Amino acid sequence: MDESLNLDPLAELITNYNELNSSVIEELDEEPSPLDFLRFVSRNTPFVIRGGAADWKATRTWNAAFLREYLSNESVNVAVTPAGNADAPTLHTDGSLVFAKPWEEEQPFPEFLDYVIAQETGNLPERSEVRYAQTQNDNLRHEYSTLFWDCQQDIPFARIALDKEPDAINMWVGNSRSVTALHKDNYENIYVQIRGRKHFVLLPPVCHPCVNEQLLPPATYYARPPSPKGVELALDPNTEPVPFAVWDPDTPETNTTAYSHLANPIRVTLGPGDMLYLPCMWYHKVSQSCDEDGICVAVNYWYDMDFSGPLYPLTNFVRSVYSQVDRNRNEKGGGGSTGEQNKRIIRSGSTVCPFCSS
Amino acid sequence: MDESLNLDPLAELITNYNELNSSVIEELDEEPSPLDFLRFVSRNTPFVIRGGAADWKATRTWNAAFLREYLSNESVNVAVTPAGNADAPTLHTDGSLVFAKPWEEEQPFPEFLDYVIAQETGNLPERSEVRYAQTQNDNLRHEYSTLFWDCQQDIPFARIALDKEPDAINMWVGNSRSVTALHKDNYENIYVQIRGRKHFVLLPPVCHPCVNEQLLPPATYYARPPSPKGVELALDPNTEPVPFAVWDPDTPETNTTAYSHLANPIRVTLGPGDMLYLPCMWYHKVSQSCDEDGICVAVNYWYDMDFSGPLYPLTNFVRSVYSQVDRNRNEKGGGGSTGEQNKRIIRSGSTVCPFCSS
Ligand SMILES: O=C(O)CCC(=O)C(=O)O
Ligand SMILES: O=C(O)CCC(=O)C(=O)O
Repeated sequence: MDESLNLDPLAELITNYNELNSSVIEELDEEPSPLDFLRFVSRNTPFVIRGGAADWKATRTWNAAFLREYLSNESVNVAVTPAGNADAPTLHTDGSLVFAKPWEEEQPFPEFLDYVIAQETGNLPERSEVRYAQTQNDNLRHEYSTLFWDCQQDIPFARIALDKEPDAINMWVGNSRSVTALHKDNYENIYVQIRGRKHFVLLPPVCHPCVNEQLLPPATYYARPPSPKGVELALDPNTEPVPFAVWDPDTPETNTTAYSHLANPIRVTLGPGDMLYLPCMWYHKVSQSCDEDGICVAVNYWYDMDFSGPLYPLTNFVRSVYSQVDRNRNEKGGGGSTGEQNKRIIRSGSTVCPFCSS
Repeated sequence: MDESLNLDPLAELITNYNELNSSVIEELDEEPSPLDFLRFVSRNTPFVIRGGAADWKATRTWNAAFLREYLSNESVNVAVTPAGNADAPTLHTDGSLVFAKPWEEEQPFPEFLDYVIAQETGNLPERSEVRYAQTQNDNLRHEYSTLFWDCQQDIPFARIALDKEPDAINMWVGNSRSVTALHKDNYENIYVQIRGRKHFVLLPPVCHPCVNEQLLPPATYYARPPSPKGVELALDPNTEPVPFAVWDPDTPETNTTAYSHLANPIRVTLGPGDMLYLPCMWYHKVSQSCDEDGICVAVNYWYDMDFSGPLYPLTNFVRSVYSQVDRNRNEKGGGGSTGEQNKRIIRSGSTVCPFCSS
C-alpha cells in the first residue's frame, strides 16, 4: 500500500498513463480488421494507416484544377479570420483572451479556391484575411455531395466494429495559414488526408489538467461592409463563456498549468492517402502544409462515441477534480471570501474540507 | 459550464456512471462473436449467456458420484475456515478487523467431497469447519487435469477477441457455507457454472469509493494439531497490511463510506450451464447454493487484462482521490497533528490546500 505516497493524484494519473502507453503512434500498413480496430477503440489509442486511402479516386484525381472544375457551380461555406484562427483562443484588443469564431459566408467554390491558392503562393498582400472551408455539418454528403463518390461511403472496418454509420462526413479545404486550435470532440474520428499534409499534435483525455481549459467569452469576426474595414473581432452579446483549452503544446512554456509539463504529446504528420484513427475525447491541434497546387484537402468520418462504460464518466471526473484544484489554486491569490465560499461548496454540507481537514 | 456546481467529484462520478449504465445485466442466449464480446470488454460491461455451456460434457455428466469416482486417486488443496470465510475481512478475537486467510491442506478428493456433501445435507455438527476447493492456480490444467477434457480448452470468443490464451483455468468445488467476499481481480473472467448455483453481486470499478477499502492485518486460520482445537485465527507475524473492501453490499448499512449508498449493485445468479463475463477490476461477492447432490461446482477462465489505455490509470486515480478524501475525513476526528501532516502531504510543496484554500 502506497497511498500515503500519492502526493498528487492528478500528477500520478498522467505519469501512470505515460508509463503504460507509448507516445509514438502505431503505424499500420493496411486497414485493420474490424476486430483489430475495436482493440484500438477499446484502448482509446490512435493509429495511422500509411497509404490506407492511397487508391481512393479522391487521392488519385483531386487537384486544384479538378476541384475548381467539378465544383464550378457550387457555393461553399467559408470561415474567414485574420490569421487562420477560426475557433481559437485569441487575444482581444483589450488584452483579454476570448474564443474567436470566424466570419462565415457562402462563396462560389472557384473563387474560394483561387483565393486559397493565391495566398499560399504569395500572390496576396501579407495581411490578407485567411479562408478555410471547415464546416463540420456533414458537408461531403451535402454541399460537396458531387465529390462524395470519389471517397469511400464509409469506413467499413469502423462501421462494422462500431456497428453504426458515420454521423458526419466532412471535407476540409484550406492552406497553410489555417491552424485548428487544440480541442477535443465526442466522436471516433477517421481522418483521411487527400492532398497536402496535416500535422497533428495529440493528447489523451487524461491530459485534461495539462491543457488549461478556461472559460472564454465568445467573440465573432466581422469581415464585410457595413462592418469596419478588415476583419474585426467583437464580443458576442449575451452569451455564456465557453470552456476551451488555452495551453498550446507548440508553445509549451506559455499559458501553462501545474501539469502541462507532464504532457507527452503524440505528433504525427499525414501525407496524401494516409488515414488517422483519432479516438474520441483526444485533444488535437492540427496545422497544415499544401501540395504543389497550393491547397490542403482532407476528409473525415465522425462516428458517435459510446457514452456507456466507465471512460466518459471518468474523463468528467478528471475534469471535476482538476477544476476544484485549479479554482482553489487561483483563489490562493484571490483571497479570503471566495475561498470561504468555495470551502462551503466543496464541503457540501460537511464542516470540514475533505482534503485537508481544515 | 457547471463546474461550480460539482459539489463532490466522487459522488458525481458514481452518479454519472449509474445514469449512463444499466444496473440490470445483459442476458444473451448464445455465445457472442469475438467482435460482440470485444464491445463488452471495451465498455467494461458484464453479461451472462444463459445456457452458454449447457452442452459441455462437464455440465451434462459431472455429479458427485462421477467426480468422486473420476478423482478417486487425486488429492486437492482445500481451504479450511470456521465459517466459509476464506480470504475475507473477519473480526478477530480482540475485536479488530483482519484479513482472514484459510488453513490450506491437501486432502484426498473423495474425502473432501464427502465432507462437503455431509455438511450440506445436515450430517455434520453445526459448528463444523467449512471446506472449499478454491485454489486459483490454474488447477483445472493441473490438479484436476483429468477432468479438463470435459470442459472447453478455452473460450474461443474470448481468445480471439483478446488475442491471448487464458492465463489460468480454475475449478471451484464447495457448498453453500462458503462465501467469497467482495474483491476485484486484474483479469477478464469467464465464469462457467457447472452444478448448483452461484449468486454474484457486482460493482463496477468506479465504485471504489463505496466499498470502504481498508488496510487489514493478515491473519491465518490454524486447523490441525498441534495447533489449538477447532479452527483458530492468528495474526501473521511481520507482514504488511493488505488493502481490502470491508463494505458488504448484502449488509449495506454496516461499514459504510460516505459513498456506499450510491452503489447500484448488479445481482445475477448463474444456474448450471450459464456463463458470466465478469470484466476486469469489477468488484464481486459470490455466494452459492448446491445441486441435489449437495455440491456447487464451477470453472472459470482468467485472461490477463490490458493495462494499456486509460482505464487502469483512471481506476487508480479514483482510488488515490478517494484515499485522500478518506484520510482527511478520518482525521477530522483524529485531531490536529496528523491533520497538519496530511495537509503537507496533500499540498506537496504548496502552502495552500488545493481543495479549500486553507
Ligand atoms: O483538419 C483540421 O483542421 C481539424 C480537424 C479536426 O479538428 C477534426 O477532424 O476533428
Ligand atoms: O466462485 C467463487 O467463490 C469466487 C469466484 C471469483 O472470485 C472469481 O472468479 O474471481
